[in-house]
Amino acid sequence: MERLEKVNNSLTEMAEKKHPFLARLLDHTFSTPGKNIRPAITLLASNFYPHDERNTEKMATGVELLHIASLIHDDTVDGAMLRRGKMTISSLWGPKTAVLAGDYIFAASATLVCDTGNIRVIRRFAETIMELSSGELQEMAETYNPEQSMQGYLGRIYNKTASLFTTAAESGAILSGAPEACSQSMRSYGHNLGMAFQIVDDILDFDGTEEEIGKPIGSDLANGVVTLPTLIAMQRRSCCDAVKRVLANPDDEDLMKEVVSLIQDDSVLEESYEFASRYCEKALSDLSGLPPCPSRDSLEELVSHVKVRRN
Amino acid sequence: MERLEKVNNSLTEMAEKKHPFLARLLDHTFSTPGKNIRPAITLLASNFYPHDERNTEKMATGVELLHIASLIHDDTVDGAMLRRGKMTISSLWGPKTAVLAGDYIFAASATLVCDTGNIRVIRRFAETIMELSSGELQEMAETYNPEQSMQGYLGRIYNKTASLFTTAAESGAILSGAPEACSQSMRSYGHNLGMAFQIVDDILDFDGTEEEIGKPIGSDLANGVVTLPTLIAMQRRSCCDAVKRVLANPDDEDLMKEVVSLIQDDSVLEESYEFASRYCEKALSDLSGLPPCPSRDSLEELVSHVKVRRN
Repeated sequence: MERLEKVNNSLTEMAEKKHPFLARLLDHTFSTPGKNIRPAITLLASNFYPHDERNTEKMATGVELLHIASLIHDDTVDGAMLRRGKMTISSLWGPKTAVLAGDYIFAASATLVCDTGNIRVIRRFAETIMELSSGELQEMAETYNPEQSMQGYLGRIYNKTASLFTTAAESGAILSGAPEACSQSMRSYGHNLGMAFQIVDDILDFDGTEEEIGKPIGSDLANGVVTLPTLIAMQRRSCCDAVKRVLANPDDEDLMKEVVSLIQDDSVLEESYEFASRYCEKALSDLSGLPPCPSRDSLEELVSHVKVRRN
Repeated sequence: MERLEKVNNSLTEMAEKKHPFLARLLDHTFSTPGKNIRPAITLLASNFYPHDERNTEKMATGVELLHIASLIHDDTVDGAMLRRGKMTISSLWGPKTAVLAGDYIFAASATLVCDTGNIRVIRRFAETIMELSSGELQEMAETYNPEQSMQGYLGRIYNKTASLFTTAAESGAILSGAPEACSQSMRSYGHNLGMAFQIVDDILDFDGTEEEIGKPIGSDLANGVVTLPTLIAMQRRSCCDAVKRVLANPDDEDLMKEVVSLIQDDSVLEESYEFASRYCEKALSDLSGLPPCPSRDSLEELVSHVKVRRN
């Protein structure tokens, strides 16, 4: 999409403007474009009503920048060495620089969103940053805790992932001057797509191969993070005890292997995929009131992409 | 000041609303009020025109929250154990939690500022976050670099300190509906006060006692950070060579002691204080067009407070 290219171009230009050290950091960060799913949602959601496209492009750039900033802090917090096959800021320049570079990019994203001049969208954007960080904080606070509810899990993944999808979609509609009902449908679409996206991500941690997901199988559980497949497996009594044992003894590698294979059970994974599918169905139904057009087709394709994605 | 108390109360209330883990973090953070100089500036700067005070109180709270968030990230980056005599978030809950808690509080501050509904102030606030983090990044990028200019130093301390003072003062005036000339005077006042504040801070690193400043004398230089007294000392040729030698050999403790005592020379410190005084004079002259009133008196007192402060 041509407009998505403009978003990537503004990221590159941003890197060129700043003082030398910051320019090198930003250049490193922006030189490998990601999958751009979030800014694509903003742009597609804005395509149903004619409007000043510069505003929605700024918003889309802000959305991608916010995502990048949160990845930089996540990588710093996790001590991750690689991201998209490249060294992370934290591994190249150290965690101190990474924390501050993340702060800078958070603020740069907010500045871009301010330039849209739409206060509703700006406030929603600031709330999204609160939701992202509180989602990560909740996840950390609940590691190795065997008493977790489905509701707690869903609230957490809304905060850490679906929140930004929701804002990406809703803000595209709002900034295009869409009627309130359309903005609400887009908001709901973003929410449902984001939930499905994170659930599939959590399933792939058990169902992918190491090569596909770029980390060892079952690494969420090994790090004490309880996700949907584990919660579903825990509904079977025998498995529940095993999960609780491994959360209390995460260094017992044999037990960990055993528990991971219990979770990899076909019926557990199938039930997990069904859970994601229900969110996908809801996302498609959110689009049903929109006029058929290439943008609607693309939004539908994003849903199928989430359902089948393998990384 | 009664209105400043309202600011501290809103911080406490904010801590109570969130989920248990975040509430504990926020409670710890907000339970020891700081010197509150930044929110005091916002409230005082707003007092010259009658207006909806809830907006300027929100702004003042946002300004203090932003300051707190940046301290949390600074302490994390520096590995600091104590702040205002209390354990830091980073030392109590670890750097991971501290990074995310800082992000959360950054975003919470922006949300409050959004509630003022004034887009000019909101944008300025987002730019300030960029300036704060780029000031810290510049400082890190330039540690142990012997080739530093006065201009580089002044640009850096504007970003890391005076920027938020500027925004605190200007936004108070803007939100009170002050005429543009008054907002500009306040902006200039905040800028000059903030520059003086940081310069005095940098002087006290050489001129205070360990007890007064809560860290070893000369610790900026020991960490490779070149500040005003060092720059002034370097204008004397013999001292310049010694500073360059110690920046190249920061572990040579005898040399470090020798260089610190060269910088503690009366004429160097006097010249440094004169530098700060010039900013203080400018800050006072920025206030000269305002009607005499208790708020103007208090803004003048803040200037004298910066000049004589010893911690």
